Amino acid sequence: MNDNMLVPVAGNGLLPLRALNRRQLLAGIGAGALALPSAALAAGGRPSWMQGAGAGMRSYGTPSPAETVSRVAIGSQPGTTGSGASRTPLAALEGTITPSGLHFERHHSGVPAIDPAAHRLHIHGLVEKPLAFSLEALERYPLVTQLRFLECSGNSAANLAAPEAPDLDVATLHGLVSQSEWVGVPLSVLLEEAGLKPGAAWVIAEGADAAAMSRSVPLAKALDDAIVALYQNGERLRPENGYPMRLFLPNYEGNMSVKWLRRLKVTDQPAMTKDETSKYTELMPDGRAAQFTFTMGVKSVITRPSKGYGLGAQGIYPITGLAWSGQGEIRRVEVSADGGRSWADAALEGPGGPGAMVRFRMPWLWQGQPATLVSRATDSTGARQPTREMLVQARGPQSLYHYNGQQRWQVSAAGDVRNSYV
Amino acid sequence: MNDNMLVPVAGNGLLPLRALNRRQLLAGIGAGALALPSAALAAGGRPSWMQGAGAGMRSYGTPSPAETVSRVAIGSQPGTTGSGASRTPLAALEGTITPSGLHFERHHSGVPAIDPAAHRLHIHGLVEKPLAFSLEALERYPLVTQLRFLECSGNSAANLAAPEAPDLDVATLHGLVSQSEWVGVPLSVLLEEAGLKPGAAWVIAEGADAAAMSRSVPLAKALDDAIVALYQNGERLRPENGYPMRLFLPNYEGNMSVKWLRRLKVTDQPAMTKDETSKYTELMPDGRAAQFTFTMGVKSVITRPSKGYGLGAQGIYPITGLAWSGQGEIRRVEVSADGGRSWADAALEGPGGPGAMVRFRMPWLWQGQPATLVSRATDSTGARQPTREMLVQARGPQSLYHYNGQQRWQVSAAGDVRNSYV
Repeated sequence: MNDNMLVPVAGNGLLPLRALNRRQLLAGIGAGALALPSAALAAGGRPSWMQGAGAGMRSYGTPSPAETVSRVAIGSQPGTTGSGASRTPLAALEGTITPSGLHFERHHSGVPAIDPAAHRLHIHGLVEKPLAFSLEALERYPLVTQLRFLECSGNSAANLAAPEAPDLDVATLHGLVSQSEWVGVPLSVLLEEAGLKPGAAWVIAEGADAAAMSRSVPLAKALDDAIVALYQNGERLRPENGYPMRLFLPNYEGNMSVKWLRRLKVTDQPAMTKDETSKYTELMPDGRAAQFTFTMGVKSVITRPSKGYGLGAQGIYPITGLAWSGQGEIRRVEVSADGGRSWADAALEGPGGPGAMVRFRMPWLWQGQPATLVSRATDSTGARQPTREMLVQARGPQSLYHYNGQQRWQVSAAGDVRNSYV
Repeated sequence: MNDNMLVPVAGNGLLPLRALNRRQLLAGIGAGALALPSAALAAGGRPSWMQGAGAGMRSYGTPSPAETVSRVAIGSQPGTTGSGASRTPLAALEGTITPSGLHFERHHSGVPAIDPAAHRLHIHGLVEKPLAFSLEALERYPLVTQLRFLECSGNSAANLAAPEAPDLDVATLHGLVSQSEWVGVPLSVLLEEAGLKPGAAWVIAEGADAAAMSRSVPLAKALDDAIVALYQNGERLRPENGYPMRLFLPNYEGNMSVKWLRRLKVTDQPAMTKDETSKYTELMPDGRAAQFTFTMGVKSVITRPSKGYGLGAQGIYPITGLAWSGQGEIRRVEVSADGGRSWADAALEGPGGPGAMVRFRMPWLWQGQPATLVSRATDSTGARQPTREMLVQARGPQSLYHYNGQQRWQVSAAGDVRNSYV
């Protein structure tokens, strides 16, 4: 045992990363061992569930009945059930992949019940040959696999709008982000097949929901890494993620990855659809609106400890969370336990890659002291996640979208955790 | 358009990889365009599902009712419902991640209904301090994230045992393999905490199912990359994958990753449990049995085209499949359309990494000719997937486990596909 593992590397108890792999330190600090002496085996006796054969195989599995993890903060416009959002329960999850059943939702008029055999994707406008694709036809095209985060542009907005830190948990604040392995046809291939006419500069994507949700996509993005996604985490898209097909634009704000995709109209200018004028624009301090703010910024959030996931007995606690960026790969996540006065580098995990989330971890020695836990991410462009103060100064109080400020969790001497601005 | 994209790079129509990104070639070969002229939009009319608001948000999502993909070849010992296996529907899936609901199953006495609050993991035997861990306690330990395949040692055995190629599909033949992102506590940390005594050389892992499924694990593996897994694809383990905790031994045959893990006994020799003597040994040609054949070999399989997923109109078809190895990372997958006389390199995709599956893709021009499609993988140790013939010669006809021979799909002039040995 190496005692200097307990020497903090930053203020208020952040420990060296190698402590992550030396759990016996917990006993060393005399602060309540987690493991108990094993006496039960000696007393004999097998649990009741070993006394008889268990359940049989199933055609499609579901979580244990003992698990109650579900999407949270489900809310809809008054008078509707499907014009709103639900959020991924970030604190209850681990690793980097979001189970498809817990992927966040954001619908503008609910989830349409589409007959996949009747559904068509049309490509028209400034093209040589207007084309219509069935799901079966798209299956014949070469597919590509992308592990990617998807974040709603309105994610975390509650932290920007309220003058005082709303007492909300990490899922309610930041749960409009999820990660899946998406598989689909490169949009460039379909556009090439239709043949672009001179002047083509934008692609207007429309969904087959009742809202006909529509966004204007720059042609350069459509020809770059955009796909028409058919699969999510191995299987067909889930209904709430655009079944049977959706546009997927890596790194762009989520609503542009139009779900239930039914047409792509090639144009020479953006369409100024209702969805990109009444919403998804940023009212700036000078009264003008920033529009077409596509790319999601560099961001991280500590998922545990967090509100509702506080501390019990004193000892070493793992600090963990997620980081992502629409601008480049995550290169670094720093964690602070003293509200940003001192920082230490966290360990990064997960498959990663361009446009992918990473999981970060940091060991922390908590001996009952109050603390403010913060994380900040840096991506491969050198961009570093700003503080909330910096964002408010730059954008003013009426801004709503693309909040990527640092999340601060205030830990009390009792081990409770709450959202904090300071 | 570059006509030399249609010049095969290997026998019987294998095309250069760059054809994967130039779908317009399909039209160029005059063999039935997949996309249809888009006239429907001009005629106006929105589909019925755009006429009214769709369904609302849900706390936990499920696949579309239009999707019928499920585990296949569910079979159990006579008189039981839970002593058998179910298989992952490989041909219906894409990308590299297996949805947890479709992960293969192999149970020895069904799925126990474990109370997670009452469950304990005991570590005892040749240790200084026998310990018992609750699920809650394990949550406090540092976790690690691993994207890993898991393969049953009996996977693909049908191809070895039968004298003639059984007319089975890819899921029934090879569906005892899946991939998940697993998150858990390094076993080395827990063993260090218990304190190993001199002479410790093996760890006997026992499950909390009625079969008390038990395997002997070399201590070196337990101290290397073994974890006690708590999460699968972001959420808690599924019941059929060991809820609330399982051993996970990357690259080893699946049954050693003991599910519903309830104890780890440290010993100086293997326990010779019923599960490693009556099963999971290889009867060799000389009558002796090879035991403790842990590591899964280098392997690949074409998932489409495959039996039940045949060809229609002539044209370019994507050949795709999965490759994995317990010995090292997949470096190369070659595909043949002429039964192995000539080969071409496939494109590799997915997050990959040590112990992870990769997706491979190869474009193929099919003009009605009969063909035999085969793939072979090579890993970072230089090991190349053998032919079935090589395996049979090396092991004799009574071998059952660790079949990693090349899968051959015979395509008829009508476009039907069947399993083939020649």
